[in-house]
Amino acid sequence: MFDKNVVLLVGGVGGAKLAYGLYNIIPPERLTIIVNTGDDFWLYGLRICPDLDTITYTLSGLVNPQMGWGIKDDTTTTLTAMERIGEAPWFRLGDQDLATHMLRTQLWNEGYSLTEITRRITSALGIRCKVLPMADTPVETRVHTKERGELGFQRYFVKHRWQPTVTSINYLGIDDAKVNTSIQEVITNADAVIIGPSNPWLSIKPILNIPGIADLMNSQEIPRVAVTPLIQGKAVKGPTAKIMRELGYEVSVKTVVANYQHIINGFVVDERDTLTLSSDIRTLAIDTLMDNNEKRITVAKKILNWLGNWI
Amino acid sequence: MFDKNVVLLVGGVGGAKLAYGLYNIIPPERLTIIVNTGDDFWLYGLRICPDLDTITYTLSGLVNPQMGWGIKDDTTTTLTAMERIGEAPWFRLGDQDLATHMLRTQLWNEGYSLTEITRRITSALGIRCKVLPMADTPVETRVHTKERGELGFQRYFVKHRWQPTVTSINYLGIDDAKVNTSIQEVITNADAVIIGPSNPWLSIKPILNIPGIADLMNSQEIPRVAVTPLIQGKAVKGPTAKIMRELGYEVSVKTVVANYQHIINGFVVDERDTLTLSSDIRTLAIDTLMDNNEKRITVAKKILNWLGNWI
Repeated sequence: MFDKNVVLLVGGVGGAKLAYGLYNIIPPERLTIIVNTGDDFWLYGLRICPDLDTITYTLSGLVNPQMGWGIKDDTTTTLTAMERIGEAPWFRLGDQDLATHMLRTQLWNEGYSLTEITRRITSALGIRCKVLPMADTPVETRVHTKERGELGFQRYFVKHRWQPTVTSINYLGIDDAKVNTSIQEVITNADAVIIGPSNPWLSIKPILNIPGIADLMNSQEIPRVAVTPLIQGKAVKGPTAKIMRELGYEVSVKTVVANYQHIINGFVVDERDTLTLSSDIRTLAIDTLMDNNEKRITVAKKILNWLGNWI
Repeated sequence: MFDKNVVLLVGGVGGAKLAYGLYNIIPPERLTIIVNTGDDFWLYGLRICPDLDTITYTLSGLVNPQMGWGIKDDTTTTLTAMERIGEAPWFRLGDQDLATHMLRTQLWNEGYSLTEITRRITSALGIRCKVLPMADTPVETRVHTKERGELGFQRYFVKHRWQPTVTSINYLGIDDAKVNTSIQEVITNADAVIIGPSNPWLSIKPILNIPGIADLMNSQEIPRVAVTPLIQGKAVKGPTAKIMRELGYEVSVKTVVANYQHIINGFVVDERDTLTLSSDIRTLAIDTLMDNNEKRITVAKKILNWLGNWI
């Protein structure tokens, strides 16, 4: 029985794989998943939180296994009907998925915090670990591009399929975001913090840039480890490598480590890569590819074994 | 070819029957339908306009013919998924129907007027007559009841199935509602105004109580006729008779005429009823039951013949 408190920081699909692995081996009361909300946006009057939903659908078993997001066997009757009234939707919203956005918006408009809303939805779906949005106030990841100027995250990522060249990224509202009491409590009680294999710039930085969160994590003598989002210089999925190149960084795990060096004291590198780090950062080299549920659990187990010996 | 401009005032299902009849025989550029928006409300973050949608779905042929509202063959995947996340929906929203509310809300939040939003949606669906919301600012029909206190219209009508006893009705926001330029223009150019067989208190009064609209209609020497919502003291559907009783009125067409006497100079009574009116209100006695499309067209034709001889 794993008897340590683990906090996992993630974005969407990539991070959800490790979340799944950990959720399947850690007693749920020991696990908290802090989720990026920089991708959240309003569409058709609804508050949409793509990363929170990806984690929620993954842990509840509802997720579409082919996509890694959305609900399996979902239909798109509403989106099809939209075309009839002259709207060409660019963001996929399944009919079952819509229920989540609608209930969330109802509760949001009634004044509930996103933390409380997420607790209600995840509880209703039988998820027993804590799933926490990184903040209750809106933070917007803004992507500045060469071809199309400034884009909201979903327009960059979904509408333009992350094809525009990124010149810089900023997080609107981050200075006003607060480490809320839920986050404060779980980090204070954590025995280890794991940064998932999510995109460092699009998914993890919005979390780590919340004023006070890095200091809070660093104030504790616990493992703070990141899992590589790159294998042999490539992202398993998504624009991590492309963005690093466009922002002028060397596309390698070294850059990722440098990006996290103010936080981490441990790093999980893929066994296919070689990485030599200064002695103040421990490393674990394993097969980090999690392309099926079994491998997700295996990776989680290896990381927990490493942390178990460390703590 | 009918070459007069007709303006029809309606609520939802009952009025939609006459709207259908008129739309099928009047050249569309001659017909304007002004629709009650006192029933409109916010639910799950979406702006829902039940009467506008009933008229729109009826004229476009999308309507569910059994219900008289909603879209035929629509599914309720989203509502069913809501139950899974702990919400028990009390207002029926079909999956196709949701597209209308979502697009409307998107445009509303972008600052478009409800008049413009309705124009876009009705045009996309091929409706060629004008369908105008009675006002662009929100008006809320509030129903005060003996058993459950003050209720929003849809909670009274749908959630509580119009069972609570009505003690009074008011129209929140009506004093700030304006006769907008579209309404001003169509009434100014009207050759006849028809008040549909809708509920006088729930559907028509919100329209007639908009400051200035009655004076505008009365300032013109044109037929201003109402079609009875009662046949032999009974409403074809809905709570008209029940509300009249609860508000202390005699349940008869005489009460309906008295209710409209500041506006009308003509009244269409059902041939099953006897009605003797003062000489300043002309009457037409016909079979007003419109329980199929053929009868809807027949009623419309008879009313137009009468108006044609009058104008």
